[in-house]
Amino acid sequence: MDKQAIYNLTYGVFMLSTKAGEKTNGCITNTCIQVANNPMRIAISVLNTNYTCDLIKESGVFAISLLDDQCTFETIRHFGFQSGREVDKMSGLSLPLDSQGIPYMGWHACAVISGKVVEQQDLGSHTLFIAEVVDAKLLNDHAPLAYADYQARVKPKPQEKKTDKKIVGWRCKICNYVYEGSELPEDFSCPLCGHGPDDFEPIYAEEKS
Amino acid sequence: MDKQAIYNLTYGVFMLSTKAGEKTNGCITNTCIQVANNPMRIAISVLNTNYTCDLIKESGVFAISLLDDQCTFETIRHFGFQSGREVDKMSGLSLPLDSQGIPYMGWHACAVISGKVVEQQDLGSHTLFIAEVVDAKLLNDHAPLAYADYQARVKPKPQEKKTDKKIVGWRCKICNYVYEGSELPEDFSCPLCGHGPDDFEPIYAEEKS
Repeated sequence: MDKQAIYNLTYGVFMLSTKAGEKTNGCITNTCIQVANNPMRIAISVLNTNYTCDLIKESGVFAISLLDDQCTFETIRHFGFQSGREVDKMSGLSLPLDSQGIPYMGWHACAVISGKVVEQQDLGSHTLFIAEVVDAKLLNDHAPLAYADYQARVKPKPQEKKTDKKIVGWRCKICNYVYEGSELPEDFSCPLCGHGPDDFEPIYAEEKS
Repeated sequence: MDKQAIYNLTYGVFMLSTKAGEKTNGCITNTCIQVANNPMRIAISVLNTNYTCDLIKESGVFAISLLDDQCTFETIRHFGFQSGREVDKMSGLSLPLDSQGIPYMGWHACAVISGKVVEQQDLGSHTLFIAEVVDAKLLNDHAPLAYADYQARVKPKPQEKKTDKKIVGWRCKICNYVYEGSELPEDFSCPLCGHGPDDFEPIYAEEKS
Protein backbone atom coordinates (compact mmCIF):
# COMPACT_ATOMS: atom_id res chain seq x y z
CA MET A 1 0.00 0.00 0.00
CA ASP A 2 1.31 3.44 -0.98
CA LYS A 3 0.37 5.93 1.75
CA GLN A 4 1.05 8.83 -0.63
CA ALA A 5 -2.09 7.76 -2.49
CA ILE A 6 -4.11 8.29 0.71
CA TYR A 7 -2.45 11.69 1.26
CA ASN A 8 -3.88 12.77 -2.11
CA LEU A 9 -7.37 12.95 -0.62
CA THR A 10 -8.46 16.60 -0.54
CA TYR A 11 -9.37 18.26 2.77
CA GLY A 12 -10.00 21.64 4.35
CA VAL A 13 -8.59 22.83 7.69
CA PHE A 14 -10.93 23.34 10.62
CA MET A 15 -10.97 24.49 14.22
CA LEU A 16 -13.22 22.00 15.98
CA SER A 17 -14.57 23.23 19.31
CA THR A 18 -16.96 22.07 21.99
CA LYS A 19 -18.30 22.89 25.43
CA ALA A 20 -19.09 20.29 28.09
CA GLY A 21 -20.42 21.91 31.25
CA GLU A 22 -17.86 24.59 32.13
CA LYS A 23 -15.10 22.95 30.04
CA THR A 24 -14.40 24.28 26.56
CA ASN A 25 -11.69 23.25 24.13
CA GLY A 26 -10.77 23.36 20.46
CA CYS A 27 -8.37 21.53 18.18
CA ILE A 28 -7.36 21.54 14.52
CA THR A 29 -8.78 18.83 12.24
CA ASN A 30 -9.03 18.28 8.49
CA THR A 31 -11.81 15.71 8.13
CA CYS A 32 -15.36 16.95 7.76
CA ILE A 33 -17.82 16.04 4.99
CA GLN A 34 -21.51 16.53 4.40
CA VAL A 35 -23.01 13.02 4.44
CA ALA A 36 -26.76 13.58 3.99
CA ASN A 37 -29.56 16.03 3.10
CA ASN A 38 -32.98 16.52 4.73
CA PRO A 39 -31.99 16.45 7.52
CA MET A 40 -28.56 17.75 6.65
CA ARG A 41 -25.82 15.79 8.36
CA ILE A 42 -22.04 16.04 8.49
CA ALA A 43 -19.40 13.56 9.63
CA ILE A 44 -16.14 14.38 11.42
CA SER A 45 -13.34 12.07 12.49
CA VAL A 46 -11.41 12.99 15.65
CA LEU A 47 -8.31 11.40 17.21
CA ASN A 48 -9.27 9.52 20.36
CA THR A 49 -6.25 10.96 22.21
CA ASN A 50 -7.53 14.53 21.67
CA TYR A 51 -9.11 16.22 24.69
CA THR A 52 -11.71 17.71 22.32
CA CYS A 53 -12.77 14.15 21.41
CA ASP A 54 -13.42 13.34 25.09
CA LEU A 55 -15.43 16.54 25.52
CA ILE A 56 -17.57 15.92 22.40
CA LYS A 57 -18.37 12.41 23.71
CA GLU A 58 -19.48 14.11 26.94
CA SER A 59 -21.45 17.00 25.42
CA GLY A 60 -22.74 15.57 22.11
CA VAL A 61 -22.33 18.97 20.45
CA PHE A 62 -19.61 20.79 18.53
CA ALA A 63 -18.88 23.72 16.24
CA ILE A 64 -16.58 23.44 13.27
CA SER A 65 -14.99 26.70 12.08
CA LEU A 66 -13.86 26.52 8.44
CA LEU A 67 -10.48 28.28 8.47
CA ASP A 68 -9.94 30.63 5.52
CA ASP A 69 -7.01 31.31 3.21
CA GLN A 70 -5.94 34.33 5.31
CA CYS A 71 -5.37 32.13 8.35
CA THR A 72 -1.89 32.33 9.88
CA PHE A 73 0.21 29.55 11.38
CA GLU A 74 -0.10 31.20 14.82
CA THR A 75 -3.84 30.47 14.91
CA ILE A 76 -3.25 26.87 13.88
CA ARG A 77 -0.40 26.48 16.37
CA HIS A 78 -2.57 27.83 19.19
CA PHE A 79 -5.32 25.25 18.66
CA GLY A 80 -3.35 22.44 17.03
CA PHE A 81 0.04 22.26 18.71
CA GLN A 82 -0.83 22.19 22.40
CA SER A 83 -3.25 20.11 24.46
CA GLY A 84 -6.34 21.44 26.21
CA ARG A 85 -5.49 19.11 29.07
CA GLU A 86 -2.62 21.45 29.95
CA VAL A 87 -3.69 24.84 28.62
CA ASP A 88 -7.04 26.66 28.57
CA LYS A 89 -6.95 27.53 24.85
CA MET A 90 -10.09 29.68 25.03
CA SER A 91 -8.84 31.85 27.89
CA GLY A 92 -8.62 35.52 26.95
CA LEU A 93 -9.72 35.03 23.34
CA SER A 94 -13.29 36.40 23.62
CA LEU A 95 -14.55 34.13 20.85
CA PRO A 96 -18.18 34.48 19.70
CA LEU A 97 -20.60 31.71 20.75
CA ASP A 98 -22.78 29.65 18.41
CA SER A 99 -26.44 28.77 19.07
CA GLN A 100 -25.30 25.87 21.30
CA GLY A 101 -23.06 28.18 23.41
CA ILE A 102 -19.84 26.86 21.83
CA PRO A 103 -16.98 29.29 21.06
CA TYR A 104 -16.02 29.48 17.37
CA MET A 105 -13.45 31.41 15.34
CA GLY A 106 -14.32 35.10 15.08
CA TRP A 107 -11.41 35.66 12.67
CA HIS A 108 -9.54 33.53 10.09
CA ALA A 109 -12.68 31.49 9.41
CA CYS A 110 -15.05 31.87 6.45
CA ALA A 111 -17.90 29.82 7.94
CA VAL A 112 -19.02 27.95 11.04
CA ILE A 113 -21.22 24.86 11.21
CA SER A 114 -22.87 23.78 14.47
CA GLY A 115 -23.46 20.06 14.90
CA LYS A 116 -25.43 17.85 17.27
CA VAL A 117 -24.12 14.28 17.39
CA VAL A 118 -26.66 11.64 16.31
CA GLU A 119 -24.29 8.66 15.95
CA GLN A 120 -20.73 7.92 16.99
CA GLN A 121 -18.44 5.05 16.19
CA ASP A 122 -15.08 4.22 17.77
CA LEU A 123 -12.70 3.18 14.98
CA GLY A 124 -9.67 2.49 17.19
CA SER A 125 -7.42 5.49 16.54
CA HIS A 126 -10.31 7.91 15.92
CA THR A 127 -14.00 8.33 16.67
CA LEU A 128 -16.33 9.12 13.78
CA PHE A 129 -19.16 11.46 14.78
CA ILE A 130 -22.22 11.87 12.57
CA ALA A 131 -24.06 15.06 13.45
CA GLU A 132 -27.20 16.86 12.46
CA VAL A 133 -26.45 20.41 11.31
CA VAL A 134 -28.35 22.66 13.72
CA ASP A 135 -26.94 25.92 12.36
CA ALA A 136 -24.52 27.17 9.68
CA LYS A 137 -23.26 30.69 9.15
CA LEU A 138 -21.12 32.34 6.50
CA LEU A 139 -18.57 34.59 8.27
CA ASN A 140 -16.66 36.29 5.44
CA ASP A 141 -15.96 36.15 1.68
CA HIS A 142 -12.52 34.54 1.80
CA ALA A 143 -11.95 31.11 0.27
CA PRO A 144 -11.67 28.16 2.65
CA LEU A 145 -8.10 27.06 3.41
CA ALA A 146 -7.31 23.75 1.69
CA TYR A 147 -5.11 21.34 3.64
CA ALA A 148 -2.68 21.12 0.70
CA ASP A 149 -2.38 24.93 0.74
CA TYR A 150 -1.76 24.85 4.50
CA GLN A 151 1.06 22.34 3.97
CA ALA A 152 2.59 24.24 1.04
CA ARG A 153 2.24 27.84 2.16
CA VAL A 154 1.07 28.35 5.76
CA LYS A 155 3.04 25.75 7.71
CA PRO A 156 6.68 26.75 8.39
CA LYS A 157 9.23 24.64 6.55
CA PRO A 158 11.42 22.51 8.83
CA GLN A 159 14.84 24.16 9.11
CA GLU A 160 17.82 22.15 7.93
CA LYS A 161 20.03 21.79 10.96
CA LYS A 162 23.66 21.43 10.02
CA THR A 163 25.27 19.49 12.80
CA ASP A 164 27.75 16.72 13.29
CA LYS A 165 25.88 15.44 16.34
CA LYS A 166 24.55 11.93 16.09
CA ILE A 167 20.75 11.56 16.03
CA VAL A 168 19.63 8.92 18.53
CA GLY A 169 15.86 9.44 18.41
CA TRP A 170 12.94 11.61 17.34
CA ARG A 171 10.49 13.46 19.61
CA CYS A 172 6.93 14.26 18.54
CA LYS A 173 6.48 18.02 18.92
CA ILE A 174 2.76 17.53 19.50
CA CYS A 175 2.65 14.98 22.32
CA ASN A 176 6.34 14.32 23.23
CA TYR A 177 6.27 10.66 22.22
CA VAL A 178 9.86 9.44 21.63
CA TYR A 179 10.86 7.20 18.72
CA GLU A 180 14.19 5.51 19.38
CA GLY A 181 16.44 5.22 16.34
CA SER A 182 18.49 7.47 14.07
CA GLU A 183 16.10 7.41 11.12
CA LEU A 184 12.38 8.02 11.40
CA PRO A 185 10.54 6.04 8.68
CA GLU A 186 9.03 8.34 6.02
CA ASP A 187 5.55 6.94 6.54
CA PHE A 188 5.71 7.02 10.36
CA SER A 189 2.64 8.12 12.30
CA CYS A 190 2.91 8.94 16.01
CA PRO A 191 1.22 6.04 17.87
CA LEU A 192 -0.11 8.49 20.47
CA CYS A 193 -1.37 11.49 18.49
CA GLY A 194 -1.25 10.30 14.88
CA HIS A 195 0.97 13.14 13.56
CA GLY A 196 3.56 12.40 10.87
CA PRO A 197 7.34 12.88 10.43
CA ASP A 198 7.05 16.66 9.83
CA ASP A 199 5.99 17.06 13.45
CA PHE A 200 9.02 15.21 14.89
CA GLU A 201 12.30 16.83 15.96
CA PRO A 202 15.64 15.04 16.31
CA ILE A 203 17.15 14.06 19.67
CA TYR A 204 20.94 14.29 19.56
CA ALA A 205 23.48 12.15 21.43
CA GLU A 206 25.18 14.04 24.26
CA GLU A 207 28.67 15.12 23.29
CA LYS A 208 31.10 13.33 25.54
CA SER A 209 34.39 14.79 24.38
CA MET B 1 -29.19 28.10 8.26
CA ASP B 2 -26.99 29.43 5.45
CA LYS B 3 -26.31 26.60 2.97
CA GLN B 4 -23.40 28.56 1.49
CA ALA B 5 -21.55 27.88 4.75
CA ILE B 6 -21.91 24.14 4.12
CA TYR B 7 -20.73 24.57 0.50
CA ASN B 8 -17.45 26.00 1.90
CA LEU B 9 -16.40 22.52 3.03
CA THR B 10 -13.42 21.44 0.91
CA TYR B 11 -13.64 18.26 -1.20
CA GLY B 12 -11.88 16.40 -3.98
CA VAL B 13 -13.60 14.82 -7.02
CA PHE B 14 -13.65 11.03 -7.34
CA MET B 15 -14.80 8.28 -9.67
CA LEU B 16 -16.30 5.67 -7.37
CA SER B 17 -16.58 2.22 -8.93
CA THR B 18 -17.61 -1.27 -7.92
CA LYS B 19 -18.25 -4.75 -9.24
CA ALA B 20 -21.05 -7.03 -8.01
CA GLY B 21 -20.98 -10.36 -9.81
CA GLU B 22 -20.94 -9.49 -13.52
CA LYS B 23 -22.29 -5.98 -12.92
CA THR B 24 -19.87 -3.06 -12.83
CA ASN B 25 -20.61 0.64 -12.51
CA GLY B 26 -19.01 3.93 -11.55
CA CYS B 27 -20.23 7.39 -10.56
CA ILE B 28 -18.76 10.76 -9.59
CA THR B 29 -18.65 11.68 -5.88
CA ASN B 30 -16.88 14.30 -3.78
CA THR B 31 -17.04 12.89 -0.26
CA CYS B 32 -14.22 10.66 0.93
CA ILE B 33 -12.10 11.10 4.06
CA GLN B 34 -9.60 8.98 5.94
CA VAL B 35 -11.25 8.22 9.30
CA ALA B 36 -8.74 5.95 11.10
CA ASN B 37 -5.20 4.51 11.20
CA ASN B 38 -4.06 0.96 12.00
CA PRO B 39 -6.09 -0.40 10.36
CA MET B 40 -6.47 2.45 7.92
CA ARG B 41 -10.10 3.23 7.15
CA ILE B 42 -11.88 5.66 4.88
CA ALA B 43 -15.50 6.84 4.80
CA ILE B 44 -17.54 7.65 1.70
CA SER B 45 -21.07 8.97 1.41
CA VAL B 46 -23.12 7.89 -1.62
CA LEU B 47 -26.59 8.99 -2.79
CA ASN B 48 -29.07 6.18 -2.21
CA THR B 49 -30.60 6.76 -5.65
CA ASN B 50 -27.25 5.98 -7.36
CA TYR B 51 -26.97 2.56 -8.99
CA THR B 52 -23.37 2.41 -7.69
CA CYS B 53 -24.75 2.66 -4.14
CA ASP B 54 -26.97 -0.42 -4.73
CA LEU B 55 -24.02 -2.34 -6.17
CA ILE B 56 -21.69 -1.47 -3.24
CA LYS B 57 -24.38 -2.68 -0.82
CA GLU B 58 -24.42 -5.94 -2.80
CA SER B 59 -20.65 -6.40 -3.21
CA GLY B 60 -19.20 -4.73 -0.09
CA VAL B 61 -16.20 -3.51 -2.10
CA PHE B 62 -15.29 -0.41 -4.11
CA ALA B 63 -12.44 1.51 -5.69
CA ILE B 64 -12.18 5.27 -5.48
CA SER B 65 -10.14 6.94 -8.22
CA LEU B 66 -8.87 10.38 -7.18
CA LEU B 67 -9.39 12.52 -10.31
CA ASP B 68 -6.47 14.84 -11.09
CA ASP B 69 -6.23 18.46 -12.21
CA GLN B 70 -5.86 17.40 -15.86
CA CYS B 71 -9.27 15.75 -15.83
CA THR B 72 -11.71 16.96 -18.49
CA PHE B 73 -15.43 17.51 -18.23
CA GLU B 74 -16.01 14.65 -20.70
CA THR B 75 -14.69 12.12 -18.17
CA ILE B 76 -16.87 13.57 -15.43
CA ARG B 77 -19.89 13.70 -17.73
CA HIS B 78 -19.41 10.05 -18.73
CA PHE B 79 -19.51 8.79 -15.15
CA GLY B 80 -21.50 11.54 -13.45
CA PHE B 81 -24.23 12.62 -15.85
CA GLN B 82 -25.84 9.32 -16.89
CA SER B 83 -27.13 6.35 -14.92
CA GLY B 84 -25.63 2.88 -14.94
CA ARG B 85 -29.19 1.55 -14.89
CA GLU B 86 -29.52 2.67 -18.52
CA VAL B 87 -25.97 2.63 -19.88
CA ASP B 88 -23.02 0.26 -19.37
CA LYS B 89 -20.48 2.97 -18.50
CA MET B 90 -17.54 0.55 -18.45
CA SER B 91 -18.26 -0.88 -21.91
CA GLY B 92 -15.36 -0.35 -24.31
CA LEU B 93 -13.21 1.61 -21.85
CA SER B 94 -10.64 -1.14 -21.04
CA LEU B 95 -10.05 0.22 -17.55
CA PRO B 96 -7.38 -1.43 -15.38
CA LEU B 97 -8.61 -3.61 -12.48
CA ASP B 98 -7.63 -3.19 -8.82
CA SER B 99 -6.76 -6.09 -6.48
CA GLN B 100 -10.50 -6.70 -5.93
CA GLY B 101 -11.18 -6.92 -9.69
CA ILE B 102 -12.84 -3.48 -9.80
CA PRO B 103 -12.22 -1.19 -12.79
CA TYR B 104 -10.59 2.15 -11.91
CA MET B 105 -9.47 5.22 -13.86
CA GLY B 106 -6.39 4.52 -15.97
CA TRP B 107 -6.19 8.21 -16.96
CA HIS B 108 -7.17 11.54 -15.34
CA ALA B 109 -6.60 10.07 -11.85
CA CYS B 110 -3.56 10.60 -9.61
CA ALA B 111 -4.32 7.75 -7.21
CA VAL B 112 -6.70 4.87 -6.52
CA ILE B 113 -7.79 3.52 -3.14
CA SER B 114 -9.44 0.09 -2.82
CA GLY B 115 -11.90 -0.31 0.04
CA LYS B 116 -13.70 -3.20 1.70
CA VAL B 117 -16.84 -2.11 3.57
CA VAL B 118 -16.76 -2.82 7.33
CA GLU B 119 -19.77 -0.70 8.38
CA GLN B 120 -22.61 1.00 6.58
CA GLN B 121 -25.27 3.36 7.76
CA ASP B 122 -28.36 4.55 5.90
CA LEU B 123 -28.76 8.30 6.52
CA GLY B 124 -31.94 8.78 4.48
CA SER B 125 -30.68 10.55 1.34
CA HIS B 126 -27.25 8.86 1.40
CA THR B 127 -25.53 5.76 2.75
CA LEU B 128 -22.27 6.24 4.65
CA PHE B 129 -19.82 3.40 4.04
CA ILE B 130 -16.81 2.90 6.33
CA ALA B 131 -14.22 0.75 4.61
CA GLU B 132 -10.88 -0.80 5.40
CA VAL B 133 -8.23 0.27 2.87
CA VAL B 134 -7.05 -2.97 1.26
CA ASP B 135 -4.82 -1.28 -1.31
CA ALA B 136 -3.74 2.20 -2.42
CA LYS B 137 -1.71 3.17 -5.46
CA LEU B 138 -0.24 6.41 -6.71
CA LEU B 139 -0.94 6.67 -10.46
CA ASN B 140 0.77 9.90 -11.56
CA ASP B 141 2.35 13.13 -10.27
CA HIS B 142 -0.52 15.49 -11.00
CA ALA B 143 -2.30 17.28 -8.18
CA PRO B 144 -5.72 15.98 -7.16
CA LEU B 145 -8.67 17.93 -8.59
CA ALA B 146 -10.37 19.99 -5.89
CA TYR B 147 -14.16 20.25 -6.11
CA ALA B 148 -13.94 24.08 -6.04
CA ASP B 149 -11.53 23.93 -9.00
CA TYR B 150 -13.93 21.61 -10.85
CA GLN B 151 -16.76 24.09 -10.31
CA ALA B 152 -14.66 27.13 -11.30
CA ARG B 153 -12.64 25.77 -14.21
CA VAL B 154 -13.65 22.30 -15.46
CA LYS B 155 -17.44 22.41 -15.45
CA PRO B 156 -18.94 24.30 -18.43
CA LYS B 157 -20.68 27.54 -17.54
CA PRO B 158 -24.44 27.55 -18.16
CA GLN B 159 -25.14 29.53 -21.33
CA GLU B 160 -27.33 32.58 -21.06
CA LYS B 161 -30.27 31.92 -23.31
CA LYS B 162 -31.81 35.10 -24.65
CA THR B 163 -35.44 34.36 -25.26
CA ASP B 164 -38.80 35.91 -24.78
CA LYS B 165 -40.40 32.52 -24.15
CA LYS B 166 -42.01 32.05 -20.78
CA ILE B 167 -40.36 29.55 -18.44
CA VAL B 168 -42.94 27.17 -16.96
CA GLY B 169 -40.65 24.66 -15.26
CA TRP B 170 -37.14 23.27 -14.79
CA ARG B 171 -35.89 19.82 -15.77
CA CYS B 172 -33.02 18.10 -13.97
CA LYS B 173 -30.40 17.22 -16.61
CA ILE B 174 -29.22 14.30 -14.48
CA CYS B 175 -32.43 12.37 -13.78
CA ASN B 176 -35.18 14.27 -15.69
CA TYR B 177 -37.10 15.27 -12.55
CA VAL B 178 -39.38 18.22 -13.37
CA TYR B 179 -39.86 21.22 -11.05
CA GLU B 180 -43.02 23.13 -11.92
CA GLY B 181 -42.73 26.88 -11.65
CA SER B 182 -40.98 29.77 -13.39
CA GLU B 183 -38.25 30.29 -10.80
CA LEU B 184 -36.13 27.52 -9.34
CA PRO B 185 -35.14 28.40 -5.75
CA GLU B 186 -31.38 29.13 -5.48
CA ASP B 187 -30.89 26.49 -2.80
CA PHE B 188 -32.97 23.82 -4.57
CA SER B 189 -31.72 20.22 -4.54
CA CYS B 190 -33.29 17.64 -6.85
CA PRO B 191 -35.43 15.36 -4.63
CA LEU B 192 -34.48 12.36 -6.80
CA CYS B 193 -30.75 12.71 -7.44
CA GLY B 194 -29.68 15.53 -5.11
CA HIS B 195 -28.15 17.76 -7.80
CA GLY B 196 -28.47 21.55 -7.54
CA PRO B 197 -29.79 24.40 -9.73
CA ASP B 198 -26.74 24.34 -12.07
CA ASP B 199 -27.90 20.95 -13.32
CA PHE B 200 -31.42 22.11 -14.24
CA GLU B 201 -32.52 23.43 -17.63
CA PRO B 202 -35.58 25.59 -18.28
CA ILE B 203 -38.80 24.24 -19.83
CA TYR B 204 -40.48 26.88 -21.99
CA ALA B 205 -44.17 27.43 -22.63
CA GLU B 206 -45.21 26.40 -26.17
CA GLU B 207 -45.63 29.40 -28.42
CA LYS B 208 -49.26 29.57 -29.45
CA SER B 209 -49.21 32.48 -31.89
